[in-house]
Amino acid sequence: MSDTGTWLAALARDLGPAGLWRPGIEADDAQLQPHLQDWRRRYEGRALAIARPVDTAQVAHIVRACAAQGVPIVPQGGNTSLVGGSVPDDSGQQLVLNLQRLRQVRHLDAANLSLTAEAGCTLHEVQQAADSAGLLFPLSLASQGTCTLGGNLASNAGGTQVLRYGTARELCLGLEVVTAHGEIWSGLSGLRKDNTGYDLRDLFIGSEGTLGIITAATMRLYPRPRGQATALVGCGSAAEAVTLLQLARQELDAGLTAFEAMAALPLQLVQRHHPEVAAVLAALTESSARGLPAWVVLIENVSSESSGHAHTRLHALLEQALAQGLIHTTALASNQTQQRAMWQLREAIPLSERAEGLMVKHDIGLPASAIPAFVSTCEQEIAARWRDARIVCFGHLGDGNLHYNVQPPADASSGTALIRFEREVNDIVFDLVAHFGGTLSAEHGIGVLRRDELARRKPPVALHMMRAIKRALDPSGLMNPGRVLS
Amino acid sequence: MSDTGTWLAALARDLGPAGLWRPGIEADDAQLQPHLQDWRRRYEGRALAIARPVDTAQVAHIVRACAAQGVPIVPQGGNTSLVGGSVPDDSGQQLVLNLQRLRQVRHLDAANLSLTAEAGCTLHEVQQAADSAGLLFPLSLASQGTCTLGGNLASNAGGTQVLRYGTARELCLGLEVVTAHGEIWSGLSGLRKDNTGYDLRDLFIGSEGTLGIITAATMRLYPRPRGQATALVGCGSAAEAVTLLQLARQELDAGLTAFEAMAALPLQLVQRHHPEVAAVLAALTESSARGLPAWVVLIENVSSESSGHAHTRLHALLEQALAQGLIHTTALASNQTQQRAMWQLREAIPLSERAEGLMVKHDIGLPASAIPAFVSTCEQEIAARWRDARIVCFGHLGDGNLHYNVQPPADASSGTALIRFEREVNDIVFDLVAHFGGTLSAEHGIGVLRRDELARRKPPVALHMMRAIKRALDPSGLMNPGRVLS
Repeated sequence: MSDTGTWLAALARDLGPAGLWRPGIEADDAQLQPHLQDWRRRYEGRALAIARPVDTAQVAHIVRACAAQGVPIVPQGGNTSLVGGSVPDDSGQQLVLNLQRLRQVRHLDAANLSLTAEAGCTLHEVQQAADSAGLLFPLSLASQGTCTLGGNLASNAGGTQVLRYGTARELCLGLEVVTAHGEIWSGLSGLRKDNTGYDLRDLFIGSEGTLGIITAATMRLYPRPRGQATALVGCGSAAEAVTLLQLARQELDAGLTAFEAMAALPLQLVQRHHPEVAAVLAALTESSARGLPAWVVLIENVSSESSGHAHTRLHALLEQALAQGLIHTTALASNQTQQRAMWQLREAIPLSERAEGLMVKHDIGLPASAIPAFVSTCEQEIAARWRDARIVCFGHLGDGNLHYNVQPPADASSGTALIRFEREVNDIVFDLVAHFGGTLSAEHGIGVLRRDELARRKPPVALHMMRAIKRALDPSGLMNPGRVLS
Repeated sequence: MSDTGTWLAALARDLGPAGLWRPGIEADDAQLQPHLQDWRRRYEGRALAIARPVDTAQVAHIVRACAAQGVPIVPQGGNTSLVGGSVPDDSGQQLVLNLQRLRQVRHLDAANLSLTAEAGCTLHEVQQAADSAGLLFPLSLASQGTCTLGGNLASNAGGTQVLRYGTARELCLGLEVVTAHGEIWSGLSGLRKDNTGYDLRDLFIGSEGTLGIITAATMRLYPRPRGQATALVGCGSAAEAVTLLQLARQELDAGLTAFEAMAALPLQLVQRHHPEVAAVLAALTESSARGLPAWVVLIENVSSESSGHAHTRLHALLEQALAQGLIHTTALASNQTQQRAMWQLREAIPLSERAEGLMVKHDIGLPASAIPAFVSTCEQEIAARWRDARIVCFGHLGDGNLHYNVQPPADASSGTALIRFEREVNDIVFDLVAHFGGTLSAEHGIGVLRRDELARRKPPVALHMMRAIKRALDPSGLMNPGRVLS
């Protein structure tokens, strides 16, 4: 047996049954494949092995064993990264460290409104644990049945409730981490305030597994609102939508939990591919002779009092917005079925655009105030270059976060033309994002997909500090190498 | 002229009039003194000079000049640190870099609810800038007329509105920093979401000037609430107060902006030293035959609707808490004068305890759920050791943050007895804080005062990472040396 074979065999023994999947020994290709290819199928690699620890001590043991052998580690949760952050490269020399068996909710402290769970719990499992105690864990994403708490933290996940409750970072009180040296840092904490030295917690959050491995976290919980009201409204422009956001924040304050915007084109795609879901738009188009509004906004308001109160407040906002001419059509859901239908419209956009063909996707963030100018300038520049390219723009307008996806014109729809098109579109979009004070990754992270773009566009002073921190905490460079930093 | 004299003279020329105060040259002892002694008068040092830059470029120039000479830098804002974080040591070899002349509010973006201001603006000036635009900057501290935004961020300040709006960290969107190498990192940003690499922002926040110098920041603003209601209530125990907190969070949700607890002893001190301020307690004691309640809680509720709504909701909470036996007496302010009187009671505690004599002070944080057990255990242990020591316990119960101050017994009120008493009290308090999952510094930071305690009590893995980061970003160790880390 080779040297590699020897230490891997020892590791397999140490980890116990099903603790290590070596290709061709414990696992065949079909078992390995879901761990080697990313969610969007842009990246596929090979692995030395897939380690499947059951607790933090085993994670530390694996990291120490890999450190001793100089073997790079790719941490993996539910493998739902949209930037190629959680699959190995094609060298076959990287070990995938999958955390899905660290799956306990260790503690729920209702009086402290906090919960401690292990990294491999799915987001849905964490939500359920809170719900069982009559409380709310507000992080909410499309992939919540699959993505894990550890991955949510490693990538500082966002989603649909950030406007009120913040990103994964803002929901986290403390972490347990296995360092690159294979030591366990017990930084779990139920504290709202703790000023005892450097903020290691937030350094690991969003570092995408490149500094260490998150094994557990203490998260904030919230009281469950008693009522919820949802509306769809039609705005004539992005500027109207942004002014509406400002008014909604003033009138609804923390009750405003979602402000999701959808331009006309993505809604047309839903009409084409999921007409039953698009039916909810009828209320907006019937009352308007002009067909689909330029922008439709989904607004959600919650109340700690009652659903009647949530409804009354949202209704008052809509009356005021109509009077000010910020919106032209409205549909206020009068029951939970209608609320669900409105959310399904929003959720159907990614599926509908997939049915339409390939897209060059962007997850950008901007100051809300800059969104109208960005949207119109970017549309002009893309149209000037490709008359028939189509822009699918939608997203978490309340957070300044847009999913800005561009469909190639027919003549660039495959092969090298597509690659060139992607590069040129990215240049236009990211140049304008930079011009308007925005970010090239609002919630998806960097991974491999945006690594070179980051190196090109991040201020050199910041890159220099990031590299110094990487060297300080992972001197051998074995933690998720090639992600975030090259 | 000595070498030191030569480069300092050159620096004085570069910085222009009043840009550098050299002892005995540009400034006499009276001018220097406020910059050399801390707020609580525990630490007094000497300085090579006090630099007073007017902009970020000058800060960078000073840092580069000091780096070239190997001169340590002590960054200073309003010099209101409670842990000796912003005065030089007594070597006379450190340069104080005072930021009070970086005082511009650079930009207010109402549509994005954000504001960019320079480090030397006082907290009050930042609040005023927001207020002038009809918006709220919620950070609020006793020292707000003097403390600066840069210092608030360097120490991750807390205060009275953290429960709803978070600490300085949670209010910050982006930073401008001069690194230890004298480079300017332009990390100002109006973005709610930005996942492009390591979280440098939160690493500088709370690092107390030991990694670099914050020169400006972009902060979150909020809509100004339309109404506010305030009440004082009497609870029979800390356990009742904590259960009341849980109920208040459920019923008032984000409307709950303050939940300040005061034990009977600090209230007695206010009665003794500021009887006119303590008069507001009459409503609680008149309706009770038992004199002062064991705990009095100040509750504040805001509303985006109206003051009537804020009042109605708070009243409903109090009715429910009375029915559940969580509170025994209540006083609900019926106008702004009464609201101010309630806050003055809370604010009079530090003054009243100062009038009472020396105290051994602690700024501890605990999970809310652990507070009742901590309070009773700690009281027992201190009473067992010193029968006549008195405990002044009050603070931001909503954040789990207590100011837990112990007055020495008569025989330990001066000299070496006091020093020994302080050490022994700290051991009792901090051992119990650790036992209950708490922190030895919730909002004041580490500075010099808690540095050795931190080194003793922080997990070695965390200290090791902190030291590695310090070496990575400040390899020469010139940034606020001896603070946070030794």
